[in-house]
Amino acid sequence: MAAKKKKTYWMGFDLGGTKMQATVYDARFKDVGSVRVKTKAQEGSRLVMGRLLETVKDALAHAQLKAGDLRGIGVGCPGPLDLNRGIVRTAPNLGWKNVRLKEALEKALHCRAIIANDVDAGLYGEYRFGAAQGARCALGVFPGTGIGGACVYEGRLFRGKVSSCMEIGHIPVQPGGRRCGCGQKGCLETVASRLALASEAAMAAYRGEAPRLLDLSGTNLNAIKSGTLARAIDAGDKVVELIIRNGARRLGLAIAGVVNLLAPDVIVLGGGLVEAMPKLFLGEVRDAVREKAMKGFVSDLKIVPAKLGDEAGTLGAAALVAEAVEAGTRG
Amino acid sequence: MAAKKKKTYWMGFDLGGTKMQATVYDARFKDVGSVRVKTKAQEGSRLVMGRLLETVKDALAHAQLKAGDLRGIGVGCPGPLDLNRGIVRTAPNLGWKNVRLKEALEKALHCRAIIANDVDAGLYGEYRFGAAQGARCALGVFPGTGIGGACVYEGRLFRGKVSSCMEIGHIPVQPGGRRCGCGQKGCLETVASRLALASEAAMAAYRGEAPRLLDLSGTNLNAIKSGTLARAIDAGDKVVELIIRNGARRLGLAIAGVVNLLAPDVIVLGGGLVEAMPKLFLGEVRDAVREKAMKGFVSDLKIVPAKLGDEAGTLGAAALVAEAVEAGTRG
Repeated sequence: MAAKKKKTYWMGFDLGGTKMQATVYDARFKDVGSVRVKTKAQEGSRLVMGRLLETVKDALAHAQLKAGDLRGIGVGCPGPLDLNRGIVRTAPNLGWKNVRLKEALEKALHCRAIIANDVDAGLYGEYRFGAAQGARCALGVFPGTGIGGACVYEGRLFRGKVSSCMEIGHIPVQPGGRRCGCGQKGCLETVASRLALASEAAMAAYRGEAPRLLDLSGTNLNAIKSGTLARAIDAGDKVVELIIRNGARRLGLAIAGVVNLLAPDVIVLGGGLVEAMPKLFLGEVRDAVREKAMKGFVSDLKIVPAKLGDEAGTLGAAALVAEAVEAGTRG
Repeated sequence: MAAKKKKTYWMGFDLGGTKMQATVYDARFKDVGSVRVKTKAQEGSRLVMGRLLETVKDALAHAQLKAGDLRGIGVGCPGPLDLNRGIVRTAPNLGWKNVRLKEALEKALHCRAIIANDVDAGLYGEYRFGAAQGARCALGVFPGTGIGGACVYEGRLFRGKVSSCMEIGHIPVQPGGRRCGCGQKGCLETVASRLALASEAAMAAYRGEAPRLLDLSGTNLNAIKSGTLARAIDAGDKVVELIIRNGARRLGLAIAGVVNLLAPDVIVLGGGLVEAMPKLFLGEVRDAVREKAMKGFVSDLKIVPAKLGDEAGTLGAAALVAEAVEAGTRG
């Protein structure tokens, strides 16, 4: 009797400050088992690592597999990373500092592990399986608390020597503007992220110009999610609509500059703001990019919403480790 | 008697609005014959093409070669190009529109021809033979009448689907600012190109704040070259120095944004302003980039002046056609 050929399985892991998700994929990247749990970073960095490994095992159990069945695991992580050595440099959201994640995973799971920037993993998922399939140059822009950016150029993620790059949120757009989390002033994310727009809307609510928003969330930034902004607009807060339109146009103007640099054929926009107000937000960004970028670069340019939602990150991370393993086998 | 093995020669051609230069290189890219003449675009587009072919032949004659000895010619051209088909779309400086340059050259010279954007060719020359040798990601910035940009990423020029990209001069930096040649407002080149700084200096001269410059060139933009600005500073025009410093800082701020996107390991700065005021101009750009870009991207970043001057463009164009021919032979 011939030995039974072992099937191929990959795991994609999305490690966020709020939640973490492990998904097992088969060789065709079909989801065969997934687990999502809260990260609970406040319980300490050690417990986060323990929960991560537990979540991996739970997902394997869901798929009726054991650790030895995995050929590789890819993890999308926040924060500055050492991609080559698989180290999470600093991730305040996780309470992590210099965590050798690749090493820990390879030791625990006895398979190849890679880490990737979370935004990179998400765009790579969209490139392989979602909104940017087949693109020669795909740019991803994800406005949230900050504004994430990524680029897949001729099939591969554009990256720095050690870490990821494409920090679209930190393009200087307003010299002397608001202080940014990175320490500079007037970065794009101080004027066009979900957090920046929520803070602008909260000011309007405080001034009495956004009564619906005031009813829905008060002036507490913690309560003003993208969905809240969308509901306030639907309920009649014209000023909130103007704030969103203005923010989207500012984002579009900065993206126009990036288009003049990279000449992408597809721009994928994702994140809460886009999901909550696809027509309004995407429409303004599209108009601004078409108006402000150089003519030669916009004629064939598609600007589309992300397709895969939360799944993009796990799919992308799994596809990245699969490629690393398969390139390694070949080369 | 064994047949004599034919030696390999490449030609690099730099086609500018003011002058054109043809240089023959041997297999090791040693200059074996070079000719430079005035373009005289005002005499009409046909005559420019005739002069181009004549210059090619003169350079071959200088090298004691004939057309059949060339394995390929690479031409660095201004203006939007169709790189794949070798067409110069529009080059107002040459009076050209939809000129099938690749086809014309291959027909006349019976060897492979490619065209490249002139800024791309220049950076590629610096990457292969000059200031950016060995770079994983090299960014080129060349402030002149406009501000040219280019990027070599992992050994290859970053490009658009049809044309070149990396239009650093057209990053929007001042919404509602001065009109740019591209039709938009407030592009980087309206505040930090040699032309923009010359126009600012001319205003100062007109107001009586730059008496040395007024002596040297009057208020005529045509007479205010980079060297004139440098001489005015040396002669004591403090205001001209402030204008240059301020422009270089604005350029540095925009470059910081590009650094946050591309995480280059080397930035090559070239062009007349840099050549005329290497210390002053480069110093300000360096300080601004180090101050304004994200910390993780500047620790290993080198910001250096171009090394090869006018030679960069012909060397780069020759190297590009050599690679195209050799890749074709292999593949």
